[in-house]
Amino acid sequence: MADVLADLRSDTVTRPTPAMRLAMAEAPVGDDVFDEDPTLHELQSYAASLFGHEAALFTPSGCMANQIALQLVVPRAGELLCDADAHVVTYEMGAAAAYGGISTRTWPFAGGALDVATVAGMIRPAGGYTVATSAIAVEQTHNRGGGTIIPLETLQALRTVCDDAGLLLHCDGARIWHAHVAAGVPLATYGQLFDTLSVCLSKGLGAPVGSLVIGSAARIAEARLIRKRLGGGMRQAGILAAGGLYALRHHIDRLADDHAKARHLAAALAPTGAADPARVETNLVMLDLRAAPLDAAQLTAAAAEQGVLVSPFGPRTVRLTTHLDLTDDAVSTAAAVLTKLLT
Amino acid sequence: MADVLADLRSDTVTRPTPAMRLAMAEAPVGDDVFDEDPTLHELQSYAASLFGHEAALFTPSGCMANQIALQLVVPRAGELLCDADAHVVTYEMGAAAAYGGISTRTWPFAGGALDVATVAGMIRPAGGYTVATSAIAVEQTHNRGGGTIIPLETLQALRTVCDDAGLLLHCDGARIWHAHVAAGVPLATYGQLFDTLSVCLSKGLGAPVGSLVIGSAARIAEARLIRKRLGGGMRQAGILAAGGLYALRHHIDRLADDHAKARHLAAALAPTGAADPARVETNLVMLDLRAAPLDAAQLTAAAAEQGVLVSPFGPRTVRLTTHLDLTDDAVSTAAAVLTKLLT
Amino acid sequence: MADVLADLRSDTVTRPTPAMRLAMAEAPVGDDVFDEDPTLHELQSYAASLFGHEAALFTPSGCMANQIALQLVVPRAGELLCDADAHVVTYEMGAAAAYGGISTRTWPFAGGALDVATVAGMIRPAGGYTVATSAIAVEQTHNRGGGTIIPLETLQALRTVCDDAGLLLHCDGARIWHAHVAAGVPLATYGQLFDTLSVCLSKGLGAPVGSLVIGSAARIAEARLIRKRLGGGMRQAGILAAGGLYALRHHIDRLADDHAKARHLAAALAPTGAADPARVETNLVMLDLRAAPLDAAQLTAAAAEQGVLVSPFGPRTVRLTTHLDLTDDAVSTAAAVLTKLLT
Amino acid sequence: MADVLADLRSDTVTRPTPAMRLAMAEAPVGDDVFDEDPTLHELQSYAASLFGHEAALFTPSGCMANQIALQLVVPRAGELLCDADAHVVTYEMGAAAAYGGISTRTWPFAGGALDVATVAGMIRPAGGYTVATSAIAVEQTHNRGGGTIIPLETLQALRTVCDDAGLLLHCDGARIWHAHVAAGVPLATYGQLFDTLSVCLSKGLGAPVGSLVIGSAARIAEARLIRKRLGGGMRQAGILAAGGLYALRHHIDRLADDHAKARHLAAALAPTGAADPARVETNLVMLDLRAAPLDAAQLTAAAAEQGVLVSPFGPRTVRLTTHLDLTDDAVSTAAAVLTKLLT
Repeated sequence: MADVLADLRSDTVTRPTPAMRLAMAEAPVGDDVFDEDPTLHELQSYAASLFGHEAALFTPSGCMANQIALQLVVPRAGELLCDADAHVVTYEMGAAAAYGGISTRTWPFAGGALDVATVAGMIRPAGGYTVATSAIAVEQTHNRGGGTIIPLETLQALRTVCDDAGLLLHCDGARIWHAHVAAGVPLATYGQLFDTLSVCLSKGLGAPVGSLVIGSAARIAEARLIRKRLGGGMRQAGILAAGGLYALRHHIDRLADDHAKARHLAAALAPTGAADPARVETNLVMLDLRAAPLDAAQLTAAAAEQGVLVSPFGPRTVRLTTHLDLTDDAVSTAAAVLTKLLT
Repeated sequence: MADVLADLRSDTVTRPTPAMRLAMAEAPVGDDVFDEDPTLHELQSYAASLFGHEAALFTPSGCMANQIALQLVVPRAGELLCDADAHVVTYEMGAAAAYGGISTRTWPFAGGALDVATVAGMIRPAGGYTVATSAIAVEQTHNRGGGTIIPLETLQALRTVCDDAGLLLHCDGARIWHAHVAAGVPLATYGQLFDTLSVCLSKGLGAPVGSLVIGSAARIAEARLIRKRLGGGMRQAGILAAGGLYALRHHIDRLADDHAKARHLAAALAPTGAADPARVETNLVMLDLRAAPLDAAQLTAAAAEQGVLVSPFGPRTVRLTTHLDLTDDAVSTAAAVLTKLLT
Repeated sequence: MADVLADLRSDTVTRPTPAMRLAMAEAPVGDDVFDEDPTLHELQSYAASLFGHEAALFTPSGCMANQIALQLVVPRAGELLCDADAHVVTYEMGAAAAYGGISTRTWPFAGGALDVATVAGMIRPAGGYTVATSAIAVEQTHNRGGGTIIPLETLQALRTVCDDAGLLLHCDGARIWHAHVAAGVPLATYGQLFDTLSVCLSKGLGAPVGSLVIGSAARIAEARLIRKRLGGGMRQAGILAAGGLYALRHHIDRLADDHAKARHLAAALAPTGAADPARVETNLVMLDLRAAPLDAAQLTAAAAEQGVLVSPFGPRTVRLTTHLDLTDDAVSTAAAVLTKLLT
Repeated sequence: MADVLADLRSDTVTRPTPAMRLAMAEAPVGDDVFDEDPTLHELQSYAASLFGHEAALFTPSGCMANQIALQLVVPRAGELLCDADAHVVTYEMGAAAAYGGISTRTWPFAGGALDVATVAGMIRPAGGYTVATSAIAVEQTHNRGGGTIIPLETLQALRTVCDDAGLLLHCDGARIWHAHVAAGVPLATYGQLFDTLSVCLSKGLGAPVGSLVIGSAARIAEARLIRKRLGGGMRQAGILAAGGLYALRHHIDRLADDHAKARHLAAALAPTGAADPARVETNLVMLDLRAAPLDAAQLTAAAAEQGVLVSPFGPRTVRLTTHLDLTDDAVSTAAAVLTKLLT
């Protein structure tokens, strides 16, 4: 394979910066299964406070953070409503059903353009044979929706729907940082709308490992038990937490750069007809290849031969992701290589 | 409560006829956990042959027949696609996820008007993190769709989609008898389209207890083990099977009467604006109360006070069901009572 | 295969008597999913009262009755303690773990000779990583223990252990009738020792189908939901309940005959060294073939060729069961055939 | 609380050494969900080779390593046999049943003194209702057995039993390093006896986080999917892997020091009657408080007040653990404090 000139597959590929590595190397640690790691305590308190919640719990992955939260908000055999393209029913290996026993029904793929009335119309009450809806999950920003942002008013309306129906509301906020930066909505404003959130430190924020579940103290106490059951109880994880803390303190505001790069990339590719800058809201660019000379698998392979890595997201859809490790040069190279292949 | 003059809640309320009771009383029996009950053998063979399949297995309920079939066609942590209002995700207590570990995504409620392209667009391949679609389930006739029939051409197109994508296709055929009678499609024609079917003996057919899972000999052998695990292994169940056999032999063609009664009922109620005879395809009549003076709970209660029992199916939706035990007089009484309440 | 002269495989093979069939044929019925079957109501009330409990629920099998009860007394991921040879971990297809998510630890096979101190020593408290013991299950009489009876004093001591540790106590009472008759302990005396019981109508009592879960009104209300989830919600099941009621009213005391036949059979086989009449407490006779010329599979096959059916229960263990359908002549024939094979 | 003078609660409390921290700080990393982390590749290959297996997979905890392995060797609803005090049924939150659907039966607590005939006698074949035994799990060294070692001959005999019965054999080898050092058995000799092993880097070896599942290439490929489902897929986990590699290369042989300290501690406490040096085989010392003036909770609390931390392991049992961070002075202090409390 060619040398990698631009890795646009995901923002998960970022490597820790020297400063972040230093913070990790010097982090005080303890046994977190005994809840004695000071760096974890600091990270968890800080993250909870950012969202105006009581508590948070570190997990080795965003999948685990989501799955713990789902088990918190939906009892076994209860029902979760979510987008048909939500990460929780697409990329988490069926864990919600397989391990959580959670039944899911899905509204038609909407990304950020969530229709509250459609969701409200799907809610079902309990009964002697019916599956009762227990919770709703949204994804902010929406991955398969191309990094689109659910407007604050939509989320507020959905919160009202949940309150009226006695449901809980979870936010898969793996990239909520991007929504915060792009939409200018405070994290705490988002936080107060949800009963539980998962947020990721190792995607856009650039930490090597880790996510957090955020919620009330009582829910997070229960989350610790579920985390242990899933095998996510780590020992001196303060090493990882230090990377996360550094990321929270230094890498949020800079996401604006990633958004600018994404818009730049979409603008450069617009002449091919595959990208539309008007649809780029954060750091993801979705290429629509329905009219293109190559399908997703072909484009992915051809670009890789020239050192540009992208992610197929459907038969004729490709996702490009900008992130901390992507230089301006890399963006230009990617734009040039992809333009040539798509023209 | 008033004496019951017309019970339109469900076709499950039918009581065995004298002839059926006699057949049950005289049935030869054996221990079915040892697979030695001759009447069960006869029922299972006969039902399988009706649908052109190799084998069938008796179950104590339609829920169990469906859940066994789902476990046959979807591995744990695999995905099933179905209608958002399918019986399997609405009325089976979350068993697919809770016991089968099956992940579900749902297409927007369509009833009989299933859109094959929409379904095909939801199919997902396997991958290192993705939930792979394993099977699709349809419901014929569609209960919450008001007894509507999925056209044969639609089912054939869906079969092709499944074959192309390597998926299995299950039919929740609790009321497939009604589709067969109303649409004139042979049961074996339906049967050959599906890898597994569940069919019910105790709804429209009037047997007291029981459903069947139908499929290949290998799948039905596996189904026996799943049935045992669910607690559905009965001993001298030939008593029940005799009722089912009687129903299969004597109560299929007469469903045309139930369909006629349903159309008659809808026509009688059409002036209230709540029923539309054009939408009645089989034995179910859905009342749309959005413009009515009473909501579903109110109508249900008010009708019950006058001896007419109906089923609320949503905040402003009520289902009426015609069946074997419903006389012409009862239909007239129901029409009169409901008309008065809805006018 | 030869004509069957004596079927000693299980007491599940009994067929309903003419009087029982008549009761079933005439039973008033209703839709039990709507909780409207009068014969079920009568059976459930009667059975609950026999054991001094508030409520009972009919199930299609003993497996389902046990599994519902286990889900009532042990939360998911909680722990049940039981005999290593208990029916619930041996013959129920792994449902406790697979569907109930219940963790089991087992005490060494003891049958009726349960050692309370051993059981008490296995109890574990909850903690941040430990699996907490939630309940204990006993089996009365003990099937693999050869129909042996746990003495009343043992059960009382175990109840005290459970109370002290905050545990619930379940009785798999599929053959508790036999203990009641043989030990002269009232059913209500047994009943008050347990939080939940399962009792079987289709083993020694001779009804064609069905068991019951027995407990408090609150637990039985929850049991209805679990039964529905398992697929055990039947419609006009009063037909079956009538058989069960008949059995409860007419077939309990006569179990003394089955016990006498079992002792007679063991005495007849004692000279072969394979049976010990002193170990026969109820209707099961265990043959110990360690010193016999045939192992269990060989004896089973050889006896079957002469019309005598028995059950292999281990490499060199065979179980003989006496029951309602076994005549004195059949017992004599069985004794003769087996004696010849074992000599 | 007093300053901690000696932390004997667990070998999980060790903090990374400066040299280990340096290795971690400099580790090359990549995205391990994409299987591109070079340090993880190195760790996994090295660990597999130590045990003579094809492949290994890094996990965030020993619980996850065990649970993945159990799901590899036991199908859902299948049965695992293990010690009644095995870690997998004691300290892993019921995950085997709750998430794996695995049924467990347990042999009486034996620690290292495993009786192969007892285990062999519990194996059950498959059948139409029986739960078939799929695998056996052993624990080397045995935690609740006081760090005792299962003799190599015992393991070899158990392997033969498994082969004869067609079962798989898993080793919870969290502390297998200690058995290797104390018994002088090569890791590869142990490795070849098991189908799967879990080994821990963060207990005696002193790495901050992580365990490994080890087995065939095919099983480890499947393990990756299960790890993802459990939420154990981490991104730049090479940081952690570097600590693990360092530990494997530098911290195995030094376990002999921990063993010497444990023997020393037991000898010092022998006069109190609570410890027996003859029973100390590795780095764990079990205190038997049945004749002591304090029970486990009291001793734990009283010692903590003097800066000595120990773990209660039962009402009258306490575990002491020696490890990398425990100095000779700390051992002496602990011995003095505990002696005074127990005299």
